Amino acid sequence: MRDKFNEQLEQLNVELIKMGALCEEAISAAAKALLEGDAALRETAAAAEREIDQKERDIESLCMKLLLQQQPVARDLRTISAALKMISDMERIGDQASDIAEITRDIEDSPVVSHVPIAEMARSTIGMVTDSIDSFVRKNLGLAQEVIRKDDEIDRMFLDVKDELIRRIGQGDSGETCMDLLMIAKYFERIGDHACNIAEWVEYSLTGQHGDM
Amino acid sequence: MRDKFNEQLEQLNVELIKMGALCEEAISAAAKALLEGDAALRETAAAAEREIDQKERDIESLCMKLLLQQQPVARDLRTISAALKMISDMERIGDQASDIAEITRDIEDSPVVSHVPIAEMARSTIGMVTDSIDSFVRKNLGLAQEVIRKDDEIDRMFLDVKDELIRRIGQGDSGETCMDLLMIAKYFERIGDHACNIAEWVEYSLTGQHGDM
Repeated sequence: MRDKFNEQLEQLNVELIKMGALCEEAISAAAKALLEGDAALRETAAAAEREIDQKERDIESLCMKLLLQQQPVARDLRTISAALKMISDMERIGDQASDIAEITRDIEDSPVVSHVPIAEMARSTIGMVTDSIDSFVRKNLGLAQEVIRKDDEIDRMFLDVKDELIRRIGQGDSGETCMDLLMIAKYFERIGDHACNIAEWVEYSLTGQHGDM
Repeated sequence: MRDKFNEQLEQLNVELIKMGALCEEAISAAAKALLEGDAALRETAAAAEREIDQKERDIESLCMKLLLQQQPVARDLRTISAALKMISDMERIGDQASDIAEITRDIEDSPVVSHVPIAEMARSTIGMVTDSIDSFVRKNLGLAQEVIRKDDEIDRMFLDVKDELIRRIGQGDSGETCMDLLMIAKYFERIGDHACNIAEWVEYSLTGQHGDM
């Protein structure tokens, strides 16, 4: 019984890693679709989002099976509760990456794009997502806490982008493009929030304490 | 055993209704904070958000208890899985209402506010949240499906607000205020998405089919 349980827990880890990799792929494709104006990358982001949705359902079934068949307690129960929360955050990350890709359709080849640090936001959030999943799989509390700290950086980047866009509107740049870019920056900021949520659930699964509670 | 189970399911309904009412309160306070420029209402929205977070944890514990002690199957299992999903959407609604209230701090008394249909967006999303929870409690599939259909209306309202704001930027209105209002409209649109998600989970709990799957 216990062996079966450990085997299922191991499978849960593997599936979470795969779902995390799909999130990175979605964010990276969305950012490239914007920066390189490549329409095919929009489809890559959308396809990754669909796979992420499927993974969420698979992992959810696995967690339910673990809960019902094994009736875990204490740390094991927290691990599974945390996994259920984490997949919900990863699913939102997929949505947001796909929303970013969708908006890029309207702003291809705008010169404003290269003047806001979107690539930097993409890079930072991909790193946060990778580290948050890693911290779960490796049960690394320090790494989870590092992700939580990084959230402030992303929030600052969002405000920088916003200020720059306001400045550009004042100089006569297209209001429509600036508003689209604001939405994209906001989506990246939200992706950072979700990575931070994931890290907080890892903290909870390891310590029984949730930073936000 | 079965009586105890039904009693806990009934308690789950009651708690979900309370959490839904808190969401309505948060959205309504945030909208009023914007439209009436009343600072006290910002605190009402923030306090409601904190209560919503607490309710999420309480309901989650209740669901875990139901899963582990009662090992439900078929429709009962779907009801509890749906409840776990719904509270996560309600928690986001609380966040978004609180984010709206936060932004209102920067745009008090701007004349632009009265020219975009924010009050209408607030009214519609409150109605969607109420109906989505009602549809769960009363097991009313038709009502859930009505909420799902309304999502398109909210999406259209968002685009109307966006177009109006772009027009106003072109006429020389403050880029900063217009961008803040765009974010607020986006948050309302997201609240509509979450109400729609809740309705989709109700549909799943009643039929075993999820519209999005």
